[in-house]
Amino acid sequence: MIAIIKQGVKENQIENLISWLESQNLTVHLSKGEYTTILGLVGDTSKVDIELLENLEIVEKVKRISEPFKSANRKFHPNDSVVDVSGVKIGDGNFAIIAGPCSVESEAQIVEIAKRVKESGASLLRGGAFKPRTSPYDFQGLQADGLELLKIAKKETGMPIVSEIMNANHLSLFENVDLIQVGARNMQNFELLKELGKTKKPILLKRGLANTMKEWLMSAEYIMAGGNENIILCERGIRTFETYTRNTLDIAAVPMLDELTHLPIIVDPSHACGISRLVKPMALASAAAGADGLMIEVHNDPQNALCDGAQSLTPDEFDDVSKSVAKILEVVK
Amino acid sequence: MIAIIKQGVKENQIENLISWLESQNLTVHLSKGEYTTILGLVGDTSKVDIELLENLEIVEKVKRISEPFKSANRKFHPNDSVVDVSGVKIGDGNFAIIAGPCSVESEAQIVEIAKRVKESGASLLRGGAFKPRTSPYDFQGLQADGLELLKIAKKETGMPIVSEIMNANHLSLFENVDLIQVGARNMQNFELLKELGKTKKPILLKRGLANTMKEWLMSAEYIMAGGNENIILCERGIRTFETYTRNTLDIAAVPMLDELTHLPIIVDPSHACGISRLVKPMALASAAAGADGLMIEVHNDPQNALCDGAQSLTPDEFDDVSKSVAKILEVVK
Amino acid sequence: MIAIIKQGVKENQIENLISWLESQNLTVHLSKGEYTTILGLVGDTSKVDIELLENLEIVEKVKRISEPFKSANRKFHPNDSVVDVSGVKIGDGNFAIIAGPCSVESEAQIVEIAKRVKESGASLLRGGAFKPRTSPYDFQGLQADGLELLKIAKKETGMPIVSEIMNANHLSLFENVDLIQVGARNMQNFELLKELGKTKKPILLKRGLANTMKEWLMSAEYIMAGGNENIILCERGIRTFETYTRNTLDIAAVPMLDELTHLPIIVDPSHACGISRLVKPMALASAAAGADGLMIEVHNDPQNALCDGAQSLTPDEFDDVSKSVAKILEVVK
Amino acid sequence: MIAIIKQGVKENQIENLISWLESQNLTVHLSKGEYTTILGLVGDTSKVDIELLENLEIVEKVKRISEPFKSANRKFHPNDSVVDVSGVKIGDGNFAIIAGPCSVESEAQIVEIAKRVKESGASLLRGGAFKPRTSPYDFQGLQADGLELLKIAKKETGMPIVSEIMNANHLSLFENVDLIQVGARNMQNFELLKELGKTKKPILLKRGLANTMKEWLMSAEYIMAGGNENIILCERGIRTFETYTRNTLDIAAVPMLDELTHLPIIVDPSHACGISRLVKPMALASAAAGADGLMIEVHNDPQNALCDGAQSLTPDEFDDVSKSVAKILEVVK
Repeated sequence: MIAIIKQGVKENQIENLISWLESQNLTVHLSKGEYTTILGLVGDTSKVDIELLENLEIVEKVKRISEPFKSANRKFHPNDSVVDVSGVKIGDGNFAIIAGPCSVESEAQIVEIAKRVKESGASLLRGGAFKPRTSPYDFQGLQADGLELLKIAKKETGMPIVSEIMNANHLSLFENVDLIQVGARNMQNFELLKELGKTKKPILLKRGLANTMKEWLMSAEYIMAGGNENIILCERGIRTFETYTRNTLDIAAVPMLDELTHLPIIVDPSHACGISRLVKPMALASAAAGADGLMIEVHNDPQNALCDGAQSLTPDEFDDVSKSVAKILEVVK
Repeated sequence: MIAIIKQGVKENQIENLISWLESQNLTVHLSKGEYTTILGLVGDTSKVDIELLENLEIVEKVKRISEPFKSANRKFHPNDSVVDVSGVKIGDGNFAIIAGPCSVESEAQIVEIAKRVKESGASLLRGGAFKPRTSPYDFQGLQADGLELLKIAKKETGMPIVSEIMNANHLSLFENVDLIQVGARNMQNFELLKELGKTKKPILLKRGLANTMKEWLMSAEYIMAGGNENIILCERGIRTFETYTRNTLDIAAVPMLDELTHLPIIVDPSHACGISRLVKPMALASAAAGADGLMIEVHNDPQNALCDGAQSLTPDEFDDVSKSVAKILEVVK
Repeated sequence: MIAIIKQGVKENQIENLISWLESQNLTVHLSKGEYTTILGLVGDTSKVDIELLENLEIVEKVKRISEPFKSANRKFHPNDSVVDVSGVKIGDGNFAIIAGPCSVESEAQIVEIAKRVKESGASLLRGGAFKPRTSPYDFQGLQADGLELLKIAKKETGMPIVSEIMNANHLSLFENVDLIQVGARNMQNFELLKELGKTKKPILLKRGLANTMKEWLMSAEYIMAGGNENIILCERGIRTFETYTRNTLDIAAVPMLDELTHLPIIVDPSHACGISRLVKPMALASAAAGADGLMIEVHNDPQNALCDGAQSLTPDEFDDVSKSVAKILEVVK
Repeated sequence: MIAIIKQGVKENQIENLISWLESQNLTVHLSKGEYTTILGLVGDTSKVDIELLENLEIVEKVKRISEPFKSANRKFHPNDSVVDVSGVKIGDGNFAIIAGPCSVESEAQIVEIAKRVKESGASLLRGGAFKPRTSPYDFQGLQADGLELLKIAKKETGMPIVSEIMNANHLSLFENVDLIQVGARNMQNFELLKELGKTKKPILLKRGLANTMKEWLMSAEYIMAGGNENIILCERGIRTFETYTRNTLDIAAVPMLDELTHLPIIVDPSHACGISRLVKPMALASAAAGADGLMIEVHNDPQNALCDGAQSLTPDEFDDVSKSVAKILEVVK
């Protein structure tokens, strides 16, 4: 961590700051230049409150050199983490596909899709029950009933299930949900993250719509700081000026995060683009870039889906994607 | 609302769609061109789920013409709304300044600041108790104790108080808080918005870090759809590529929202820029642009503030800003 | 094209507008609603000046339905275009790798690299001679001398050469350059585009730093409108909030553009990320997503490169990337 | 400037780097930590090529502490610069309004507008002759003829004239243009900037659509490095996700730039918002924030303007804006 001192500050003010920093168990190196004086802070800076420092009158700016995340940091945990979702392993060479409809609609729908995607190679079943919608007038999901239908599909097929939580008060409803998803709009809902940190549930943490990888890892850190290290990151596209695609899928986040963290990372090409025709090329690209898995929307009747149909694949299309992904994995292994 | 039909779709498919739309109480106008066929949908389209329509196989794209927000819409409510915060009116010509520290730290601190900012013309006292911080290792606020200290300052000065809520389960703690703030990171925490919609409390709804005005008004709509129309919007800067300032204050949002909605809008120049020296010019600019109020951070000892000191004014600086703003208001009235 | 009429406009004003539009060879369909009146304009709208229409007092907004680009539009030219660069074909199944150093530095350097990348499967040699640098104090390239060195490497290896032009006055210097690159910062240098439209040279048009695909295709349209249809698009990353990578590579642009245009599209993973370790995964991802080619920076001595060394591969690393890309192409063919 | 050294680098490699840096007339301070070693570089770092350093194998990252711009830097030139445009002074307390149509259309039009805006307090006349348009099919301006008409209006009214240049080859046509504008899309057209640096003409440098203040100042530096210090910066809005306004006017850039540079800065509220109704509040806000001037579009017949009519004021509206701005200036002086 580097603290840049304002011009014209007195010697004894700098000395006082150095004493205070040293009392925080940091080693301080002083560099004095004609126009700038710099303090290099060495030690465990991940717990230094950067705004606290910046607010000191003699400090012009503070820059982090090492990352502010610690539990998620590859440097302190060199080996890949593997998250075990009720027997399905993800990470460190274990590739998994999560598939299913945007919204759970009926028992027939979810059971049928579950069977079809399982046959085609999916190892986890997704289905939205609580839906975050921009408009209060849009369909909000079947909620608790949707979770019950998912559990039926799990029983029928043996597939672990994945669904999104929007409220920590619903945690008891998620007891039999195997992987709990935190959606993009809740990536910085710190109260929710803290509650999830108290559980031992595997968490699928989606990237926020306009968030950096650093902020994303800090959100993972919130959950890990509570004691829950079962986190899978999910890239789902970020907001840019482009309008032909709904979001811009940041596939480079896959190898970049692989350097920064030991946590597994999967990609959701369905939400990222919002166009079903783009799901296959983006799924292949993600696999080629080294992702640990994929999350893909599949619907048995896209024309009548209650939500996000434009981005859903049919079971047949999913089968084709799944097989093509397998071929790519052969090559990049 | 406009639905653009894909090329090569059969006549009877279009007719079926038109019948279905008409059954939803919409009037449909058909425009057929060589390369595109367009359906113009007229009626109350604010409750049409745009994704549902887009998911139909024969539809290429759907574009809204009228706004998806209704309760917040100026068109259906031409007069300015006035929000009454325990006797302090905001909106329709009533200008108010909210001032106080980023974080409540002690009784002495908050009472002292309250007295100073009241003398200088502030009509509401702000103070953070629950703090949303990017890092779990940063100071999280005095929480419930902070709210108690705020209430003491309210008693001592008679000023209504403003503080941020992060969790609907804390609502009972906010019973004596006069204006409840929803922070930028929770602007799309729909579960929280729904709970606030069930109360009658005035809500200060901050704009999300990378959200559009339309999304912001849809979040207001979530609260209003629940029955609570006491909403004040607060522009606090949006994320851009610029790094010299923390965010980019979108002052044009003030006159633009004035056209779109009847709700009052205030500006927070402290968080937007993150630099105390920019607070005065941005406060003056906001007043000149027609804002209904300001929210300004004031600290009696910025060097030792636990949080966001870099952007806080001293009480003397605040006094100067408040007087200069009054002069601007004279001119633009 | 849709023109939305303001509320409260008189009948005869609308009739006058319709007459005027019909005189422009457009067919007009009228949809009247309670709150909005819409004109649907059908015909060749690509040459209608949207701002001209929007400026009319009775018009609230104008929205395009069909794309404003015509020569580049897939709809009017369903088959893939193939661009022939001195015998090397790109597009419609013809995949090509362009490789070489960021900057040409010496005859020994460029000839050595040319030989190495040719052996490893590159079919075109790139090398920067005129360099666009943010700072006037940074190295600006060897300029005309650099082009001469490139031509020597071309003679030695038989590889067609690629270099960036920054000034239409330099066109004569580019006579023996086989593929002329327009850099991101010049994507909307319309004067340069017009001059290139008058030549028959193949043009490599890079996407601007914060430009949409529509703007990019409109820039291609500038060149095509002048009569030169030999254009290859090059995705090179767009500006986002992310800072770990220099830019965000928009790989979804590859399949999206494949729908929108018949022009070939290649990807430059070196500039997009700015980190050599990310070049391989991003090259594989681009190939998996269906790109028509790649542009990769290769340097024989990255430690001493004068420019952009952080993102360059060694010839051995390039050889590995090239072979792995070939395997991906086998799978996705 | 700070260079962060990779982990595991050998002592003698670091020593070699230090020697090399010292040979570049820099003083080097070494800070060694458990996880990071940092070199603090002190001296004239504005001419150090940051990419050259970053490309060294032992260097992880390089961060600038002091600004890369020098001639434009307030630190080395503490007093405000005043730019004299044919007798009209801008900067250091001299406020000026530039007004006129987006495009010059006819002698009658430009002379009439010139007279009206002069009466209302404008001191410079603007008019577009060469127009940068996204589409090659849109109106491109009257070009050289437009400049001739502007010169007639100058003769009639005595007002200095402002117009945009798009091509350095046109410089001779601009001989009698008093202030040459560089548009947003050409902010990083470095070849054009270099040519303008060789003249003594006052330059109005607009901010690029998605550029930071640092990049903008580096573009000013390009012109200044050539010997021309007569530069006025013009904020005109940046690209964000917001769609209700065309761009987001970054008014905080005014006081921020006032700290960073001695160059005058004006604001163009017309292009920024694209909506004439927002011009007045944004003009007042800019004046309140301390701008050195304004550039405002005025048209005598907005309904029939060939370009950008939606954002133009009538002469009467301009008169109102000009008078209101004067009142704001009284207050903030």
